[in-house]
Amino acid sequence: MPPDPPILYSYFRSSASWRVRIALAIKGIDYEYRAVNLIKDGGQQRTSEYKERNPMAQVPALVIDGVTLTQSLAIIEYIEETRPENPIHPKDPVARAQARKLAEIINSGIQPIQNLSVLQHVEKLTSRPESKAEWGHFFINKGFVALEKEIAQTAGKYSVGDTVTIADLCLVPQVYNANRFKVDLDAFPTIKRVAAALAELDAFKKADPVAQPDCPEDLKP
Amino acid sequence: MPPDPPILYSYFRSSASWRVRIALAIKGIDYEYRAVNLIKDGGQQRTSEYKERNPMAQVPALVIDGVTLTQSLAIIEYIEETRPENPIHPKDPVARAQARKLAEIINSGIQPIQNLSVLQHVEKLTSRPESKAEWGHFFINKGFVALEKEIAQTAGKYSVGDTVTIADLCLVPQVYNANRFKVDLDAFPTIKRVAAALAELDAFKKADPVAQPDCPEDLKP
Repeated sequence: MPPDPPILYSYFRSSASWRVRIALAIKGIDYEYRAVNLIKDGGQQRTSEYKERNPMAQVPALVIDGVTLTQSLAIIEYIEETRPENPIHPKDPVARAQARKLAEIINSGIQPIQNLSVLQHVEKLTSRPESKAEWGHFFINKGFVALEKEIAQTAGKYSVGDTVTIADLCLVPQVYNANRFKVDLDAFPTIKRVAAALAELDAFKKADPVAQPDCPEDLKP
Repeated sequence: MPPDPPILYSYFRSSASWRVRIALAIKGIDYEYRAVNLIKDGGQQRTSEYKERNPMAQVPALVIDGVTLTQSLAIIEYIEETRPENPIHPKDPVARAQARKLAEIINSGIQPIQNLSVLQHVEKLTSRPESKAEWGHFFINKGFVALEKEIAQTAGKYSVGDTVTIADLCLVPQVYNANRFKVDLDAFPTIKRVAAALAELDAFKKADPVAQPDCPEDLKP
């Protein structure tokens, strides 16, 4: 009997879920999709049932090989180590360090500061609903100024050379967030070009928010 | 002729610099320490000279094997891959995923939200100097509630079992920050116990802020 397929707890628009969806698509791993709506009912990720899976009350969580894994980059590293076909890391250690650096600039340097729970706290602190959009725009734009300089040094067709790396898995969802916060991407030509090239790839199309079962109909093209 | 020793651009109290110092100490790698004062002159990390090394204007940066690496976890992964003696990762992929998960809860889930540039922005937004301390306390405490649940499931003597992992490298600096922000550690018994056990180890003593050349005399014991 084949093992049960992995289960991904995901929200269509969550950056971290999206990164893992791309990794699973690159590796050709089929999985069961379970939607966790981050908005509805005050956030389904905050239910005690979900927090049993992930005390951080965040998506994604991936049930695979009999264990529940959380934290997108840790999940991607695990998938890469246990399913080495269609590699996500370059072979050269320096190129790998560059790819992980770009991934971390986004994963720890940009995304956490503009995530939902921080924005909700900013609004509470200021009592101005518009402060969320200002905050998100400020920190994404600031991060992109640095990221553009970095990526311009390593990019080929994609973020690091001409093969897809973990950096690209983080880049595409972050560019989506940048657009939501009305960051002017024309100021970041390498980021814009690489994101456009990635959007053409099948794995990225499959992982896109609009292709997920929990994407509302009115957001589909 | 032996190769030049690595150069670490560091600030004694920076969490991310501290993680890398622990990794270098565990591996027994000698290096040249170059202090970057994050406070003085509006922050030496913001000079154009330093931003050539790291456009994110953050420490650490490690010059090693002829390249400059940034982002603490990417640096630690590189050191682990190129210097496998005294391993920082467990051999078992699931244990490795657990260690990386805990590292990322801190690295992307807690630390970035309470780092210097975010706190400075919070103060600017609220015009209340005390808002920095409130913000830092809130997000570290919130993160530790989740981290305690996670770590209680994996800890032995240290964060994951009985050997030091990348999770421990992140834990110790974050506990230091928790103390600075007056988070009550008695509410987090596993975190407190593990951090105390780690503090006894030579590599952690060597990497401690008080042992760094840029630690002010009045902060030394």
